[in-house]
Amino acid sequence: MTVDISYDARTGEPVTELATSTTQDVAVALAAAAAAAPVVASTAPAERATWLGAIAHALDVPETAAELVRLADEETALGVDRLTMEIGRTSTQLRYYAEVAVEGSYLDATIDSAQTDRPALARVGVPLGPVAVFGASNFPFAFSVLGTDTASALAAGCPVVVKGHPAHPRLSRALADLTHRALAGTTAPDGLFALVTGFAAGTALVRDEHTAAVAFTGSQRAGLALWRLANERDVVIPVFAEMGTVNPVVVTRRAATRMDEIAAGFAASFTRGAGQYCTKPGLLFVPRGSGATDAVADALRRLAPSAWMLTEPIAGSAATGVGELVRAGAEVVAEIPGPAGGWAVGTTLLRARIEHLRAGSRLLDECFGPVAIVTEYSDRAELDRALGRLQGTLVAAVQSGAPDDGDDPDLAPLLTRLSALAGRVVVNDWPTGVAVTWAQHHGGPWPATTAPATTSVGAGALARFTRPVAFQNTPDAALPPALRADNPWRLPRRINGTVS
Amino acid sequence: MTVDISYDARTGEPVTELATSTTQDVAVALAAAAAAAPVVASTAPAERATWLGAIAHALDVPETAAELVRLADEETALGVDRLTMEIGRTSTQLRYYAEVAVEGSYLDATIDSAQTDRPALARVGVPLGPVAVFGASNFPFAFSVLGTDTASALAAGCPVVVKGHPAHPRLSRALADLTHRALAGTTAPDGLFALVTGFAAGTALVRDEHTAAVAFTGSQRAGLALWRLANERDVVIPVFAEMGTVNPVVVTRRAATRMDEIAAGFAASFTRGAGQYCTKPGLLFVPRGSGATDAVADALRRLAPSAWMLTEPIAGSAATGVGELVRAGAEVVAEIPGPAGGWAVGTTLLRARIEHLRAGSRLLDECFGPVAIVTEYSDRAELDRALGRLQGTLVAAVQSGAPDDGDDPDLAPLLTRLSALAGRVVVNDWPTGVAVTWAQHHGGPWPATTAPATTSVGAGALARFTRPVAFQNTPDAALPPALRADNPWRLPRRINGTVS
Repeated sequence: MTVDISYDARTGEPVTELATSTTQDVAVALAAAAAAAPVVASTAPAERATWLGAIAHALDVPETAAELVRLADEETALGVDRLTMEIGRTSTQLRYYAEVAVEGSYLDATIDSAQTDRPALARVGVPLGPVAVFGASNFPFAFSVLGTDTASALAAGCPVVVKGHPAHPRLSRALADLTHRALAGTTAPDGLFALVTGFAAGTALVRDEHTAAVAFTGSQRAGLALWRLANERDVVIPVFAEMGTVNPVVVTRRAATRMDEIAAGFAASFTRGAGQYCTKPGLLFVPRGSGATDAVADALRRLAPSAWMLTEPIAGSAATGVGELVRAGAEVVAEIPGPAGGWAVGTTLLRARIEHLRAGSRLLDECFGPVAIVTEYSDRAELDRALGRLQGTLVAAVQSGAPDDGDDPDLAPLLTRLSALAGRVVVNDWPTGVAVTWAQHHGGPWPATTAPATTSVGAGALARFTRPVAFQNTPDAALPPALRADNPWRLPRRINGTVS
Repeated sequence: MTVDISYDARTGEPVTELATSTTQDVAVALAAAAAAAPVVASTAPAERATWLGAIAHALDVPETAAELVRLADEETALGVDRLTMEIGRTSTQLRYYAEVAVEGSYLDATIDSAQTDRPALARVGVPLGPVAVFGASNFPFAFSVLGTDTASALAAGCPVVVKGHPAHPRLSRALADLTHRALAGTTAPDGLFALVTGFAAGTALVRDEHTAAVAFTGSQRAGLALWRLANERDVVIPVFAEMGTVNPVVVTRRAATRMDEIAAGFAASFTRGAGQYCTKPGLLFVPRGSGATDAVADALRRLAPSAWMLTEPIAGSAATGVGELVRAGAEVVAEIPGPAGGWAVGTTLLRARIEHLRAGSRLLDECFGPVAIVTEYSDRAELDRALGRLQGTLVAAVQSGAPDDGDDPDLAPLLTRLSALAGRVVVNDWPTGVAVTWAQHHGGPWPATTAPATTSVGAGALARFTRPVAFQNTPDAALPPALRADNPWRLPRRINGTVS
């Protein structure tokens, strides 16, 4: 029997051991999910919304939330304030995805009447079936057991089996228990939701014939491993892996006049959550001679960030990562020691010469944790060449002349350049923080995600879990509700080319 | 130097040899496409529409069309009537995809204003860049050099490099020449379109760093090979492969009263174009004792289909395929001899016992050509078990009680069952023929396509070639035109949740 060990991240002491799922547990969970799938798929979005609402409501109970935050803080050391905000975001996003499902445009219901030269066709998204969700370590609420992948898959009509992250094993089980209790008071079928734990369970989850899709948030190494595993199946299934990237920030020449403000913003952004954001800005391009490196180092010393990492391996790889960056040509310019004990690490600022940013260099890979690199460019051509060597990234940012300066001559060409590289481009703001809205896109070109056309945050997240089916020459009574003449789900639909 | 050999399909005689592209040719084509990509991407859809219109106009010139049809008929033996219809469809669909681009909803432009707790976000689809299109053999116009993949990629703002199919090498070159001449009179940049030929060129296309996506129509073997090749790249790119499938048809008990009509329809559908449709109905499920097998055999004898195949290998594998089906347990019930000479094959109807339709059996794989299997079921449970063993398929059909009978008790459960299996479900109609409309979906679960959420036909085809990018806190003047306040492209947009 293998176990998950729950540690106190601030002391490194093991608190308790918890048995992980057996292969049999996984098979049972997926069989139940597969049995529930047709029921869930044919349930009206408004009814599914009540299931998500019940979970959100349970999370919002103050005593429950306080206890979950306490548990999460012990396991992750992310702090009570941040975790309290995050649990609030999590119930908000459960409700948000339910609202998006009820609004219904994600189903893309489209109807073409018969004409003399063609048959009647009506198309709608059908839910894929059971989704395997791999929670992330760094957002124990918002991207984990009840996070954005779970919420959007449930909202889209798919049962979910979560593989709990071993960085917060007690919290994962507590969230699963809460979910089961909340759903018991609703019309949700058994099998709508399950938690499994342990490494072997994750592999079994991806291989199981009932699993229809995989959603993952985490490192490139783990995400690509799941993608490869899914590609080896007889029936290959989609893997929506959102993976950590370098997330470059470019400071234009005009922006250099406000370098102190930019340095403070950069220091705060890359050390936020101990640098454990997939959107952490890891690489700052500054005009040569702008004094940015010293300014960021000063800002860091004023900020005096203190950082426990989520797990011992993450703390280890943050420390190792700094060594790798130095061997790849970077130079340490500031080190702020971390707290004592547990999974603590220091904050490190490095400087690299722009010519060292070569394709394949370690300098162009994410270093998870409170670590960032500053690099100087001489002119736009040198900057362009360096940007051309970067990997696809979740987000890229520009600090331009002034907060509302659309006239900075470097801005427009930079946005064109960066939008070829990133899923989100930010101007005079920082990449950390991903709002849950209609226009959000949290994805990006390979290897930021395995499916660059999809987003894991925002209204677009639901569409990942459906697949269109067209019904040709089908009598109204035999069509799914979304396509019937009386439109019982009150969906926006495109009929003969016109949306109504 | 390797060559493409153009054969007369009716005689099997080689007509001429044509040099194929060198690796250098491919690199040059892709470098030009990559250079054109930003220009094409930033061109307004209405201007791109004039480029597609110029190509369509050139195809529509009667003398040109007649000469292209003559050439296509010699190379494919598909017949002048069918090819004349197909070239008409091809110019129509070039114009259709241009109209869909101008309408602009495929860009999914979405704008959220800033609020106190979140920044302004605006998202739009950006074209991926150069698309490698692998034309199909069986639709030398509609799914080849100027077919649905090329038209939808150009409409979506991506340069295209086509790998011409060796089944119609002269036609491919003639279509490419026509395209270059037509585009020369427009504002289209050099590099918008190119044709390359030869097997090695195809591999080089998929591997080239400039290629951003692959679109393919053809066999599972070839499509999956390209998918694997793309997955081995440093930067993995999406492969939209639409691949031939078995496309089952179920005749309900009530429908058995009109078996002669159904048998005639099935015979006509599976022999259409010599059975060389990816949507060919390859497997007919009929109620036991309905006399369907004899009825189909009779219909075939009345139809007396005559069939030249597209190529010698296709003719060979159709013949070999019948032997494989027999070894897998099927029994030949009717053979209609083909014409003499060239790539001719006979038409073959087989019968298989339903218990032989086991997962992994050859009976469940496509047999390209005028070949189909009839199988009898005793009751709904037996039928359901057999359907549960089928692979994902492009299309599935039901013949129910009467043309408008929504009351056939077997219809609704069958549609639920088949919509889990297929990208399109057809009632009282035949799967061959794929209308180009808003509601069309030409795709299907793995292995019908490598990307089951996407379609290669219909308005949805454009979205394959874009990737969303969100712009955060970006001044209006620096946004792409699709997201500017004055909406210069007049796109439908969702603003703060409401579509206008």
